[in-house]
Amino acid sequence: MTDPAAPTDPAALLGHLAGHPALADRLGGDPARWSVREIGDGNVNFVYVVRGPNGAVCVKQAPPYVRVAGPSWALTPRRVLFEHRAVVEHRLHAPEFVPKPWYVDAESHLLAVDFLEGHTVMRGELVDGALHPHFAAQAARYLADTLFGTSDLALTATRKRELAAFFETNTAMCRIMEDMVFTEIYLPHPRNRWTSPELDDDVRRLRDDTELKLAVSRLKSRYLSSRDALLHGDLHTGSIMVSADGIAVIDQEFACYGPMGFDIGTLLAHLLIGYFAAGAHGPERAAQRAWLLSAVEEVWEGFRARFAELWRTRAAGDAYPAALFDGVDLEPERQRYLDALFAESLGFCGAEILRRVIGFARPDDFTTLKDPATRAAAERRALALARSLVTEPGRYRTAAEVTEAARQA
Amino acid sequence: MTDPAAPTDPAALLGHLAGHPALADRLGGDPARWSVREIGDGNVNFVYVVRGPNGAVCVKQAPPYVRVAGPSWALTPRRVLFEHRAVVEHRLHAPEFVPKPWYVDAESHLLAVDFLEGHTVMRGELVDGALHPHFAAQAARYLADTLFGTSDLALTATRKRELAAFFETNTAMCRIMEDMVFTEIYLPHPRNRWTSPELDDDVRRLRDDTELKLAVSRLKSRYLSSRDALLHGDLHTGSIMVSADGIAVIDQEFACYGPMGFDIGTLLAHLLIGYFAAGAHGPERAAQRAWLLSAVEEVWEGFRARFAELWRTRAAGDAYPAALFDGVDLEPERQRYLDALFAESLGFCGAEILRRVIGFARPDDFTTLKDPATRAAAERRALALARSLVTEPGRYRTAAEVTEAARQA
Repeated sequence: MTDPAAPTDPAALLGHLAGHPALADRLGGDPARWSVREIGDGNVNFVYVVRGPNGAVCVKQAPPYVRVAGPSWALTPRRVLFEHRAVVEHRLHAPEFVPKPWYVDAESHLLAVDFLEGHTVMRGELVDGALHPHFAAQAARYLADTLFGTSDLALTATRKRELAAFFETNTAMCRIMEDMVFTEIYLPHPRNRWTSPELDDDVRRLRDDTELKLAVSRLKSRYLSSRDALLHGDLHTGSIMVSADGIAVIDQEFACYGPMGFDIGTLLAHLLIGYFAAGAHGPERAAQRAWLLSAVEEVWEGFRARFAELWRTRAAGDAYPAALFDGVDLEPERQRYLDALFAESLGFCGAEILRRVIGFARPDDFTTLKDPATRAAAERRALALARSLVTEPGRYRTAAEVTEAARQA
Repeated sequence: MTDPAAPTDPAALLGHLAGHPALADRLGGDPARWSVREIGDGNVNFVYVVRGPNGAVCVKQAPPYVRVAGPSWALTPRRVLFEHRAVVEHRLHAPEFVPKPWYVDAESHLLAVDFLEGHTVMRGELVDGALHPHFAAQAARYLADTLFGTSDLALTATRKRELAAFFETNTAMCRIMEDMVFTEIYLPHPRNRWTSPELDDDVRRLRDDTELKLAVSRLKSRYLSSRDALLHGDLHTGSIMVSADGIAVIDQEFACYGPMGFDIGTLLAHLLIGYFAAGAHGPERAAQRAWLLSAVEEVWEGFRARFAELWRTRAAGDAYPAALFDGVDLEPERQRYLDALFAESLGFCGAEILRRVIGFARPDDFTTLKDPATRAAAERRALALARSLVTEPGRYRTAAEVTEAARQA
């Protein structure tokens, strides 16, 4: 492990883990008999499952580059430190939705968290046509609990400034989002990919769409300059594991203080991407399509209700000091705040859909559609809705209006 | 200087300065013959002028408390480090308006900058009835150059995040603003002072004014959560020195990344405070009053023009990437941005006026008015305008509409 470019060999990894008593207890038994398996589904990191008689942990190792791109795309391995701190902070507010961390090592860039038995990646479930009726309510609660809990409504300014200062140094990971979400797809860029030639004209139009590029630039400015809450930072359906009755959120390496609408919008975007992709399948996916649109509504409405409840019952932060509003009904202010957050979320939702159709990181929902004409038709519907969400978010007053627009797209 | 609570004695101070070659060169000659004088006009720090044959420096020493309050009000002496870094960063963009720093010492909490020969404090000039016709154009340029130069329009995200992370740790100084500007005056608080009993009813009404407190809380949330530019953080007329033809901005210890409107609004507030105070004098202050209102208009209009010019000619930041807008006229977007910034600035302007009439730090403009009835009348006019600026900033489309409202108040 002295060569930072080399992924850990299994024996070295086991030796490292055995040296940590809490982790050794967690796995149990003789370390020589632990099993280790590289599961290889990380785009950015190496991921191992290490199993002992008492349990299993998932160990992530960050090489100093992007795994799928190789050493030519350098990336700081310190990203595991930001992921670890985000896990710790989010677990203070939403422990049931974030796997427990066992240890982090700043030298070997290893992070170990509980392995989630019986969980699969949400995006894979969507691609396979599955429905998870419990997903939306839990995702809504995760979003509300983490975003409210790390905001000025919940934290003192002293505590929030300390957190924001730490995450402000997650510069390299934020830069990826700044480039990929808000910039590259609006330019000829070697990383861009799309269904070609079917969408070539759409891509040309997008690059010439000044109204859209201005609206996206305003969203980028918000991403760069607002520090409303500690974001997951990359909350797509590949960052959420599901089981028969629960969800768990992983891959927090893009965590930063930023606008709440970025996390909310990203998740809504991937539910809508799942919906448009499902639309390319036949009638056998009708129930999944209906569920995905209801999930869009439930995520937002559930978030809204939970966030307002937390504000009513757990507002201990320096914003809106309680001493100033004794006996005052703050409910209209909360609804005003949430209306503005909804519009912001829709903007980020649209930007995320656009970059997933045209950019570097195209999701399996679309790429598994093998017929280009069918895929392009689904992607074009997604683009149409996305443009509207970015350029006229104020047109949508409720999530039901968004899902209706998705049906009409 | 080992006892952090003790102000430096002159001999120790001179010994310290003599040990720094650049500074010794600056002052020149034999250190034993330098003169040192405590000028005693700092609220927060001890301030010395040290003079040698070649020149003079101003040395600020931060005790671990607020000077005017004494050791019972503890305050981190690290504030000089934030002041020093803000001076360095602002001088990259506006060197003609910020005195050159010679050295900073993190152990003795000393900061030395060029002494400004022939300069006096702007607030004292206003109290004395003076006019400084060059002031507004230079203040506008200082504001535009420092705020634009430290924003996402000028800096890469990598550079801005590094700066923001550093200044995010200026927690203790920011806390003073959070408390004094946005919170304490709306509560019974032992630090509050006002012209009593004349304004007692006004103060009572203000504490019960839910619409006002909500609007102030929204401004506080922006102060807590936006990182638009590196602010001076306390840009009142006591932080600006003037001479016959120049201005110089000092006392950057409240520097933080925050909303641009906070600096702009604070300066406009103190010009308006000067105007209302001048109104309590007779016709001999008519010219000063007219000048102060024209200065309000000139500061904003000059800022607006200069900021737009910088955006046209020096936009090298990650916001609105130039590559996306080749051949596109961004002027409507600039004007839209500046319209929003004007409204934000008026909100902060109103909040600053309110806390200067009712809070701990009442300005000499008002306190030198010895007749309570006269003073209360001037302060009441200021309160009326301030409430309108905070609760309905959108009502004012131009600075001329604000000055007209000041005349009518």
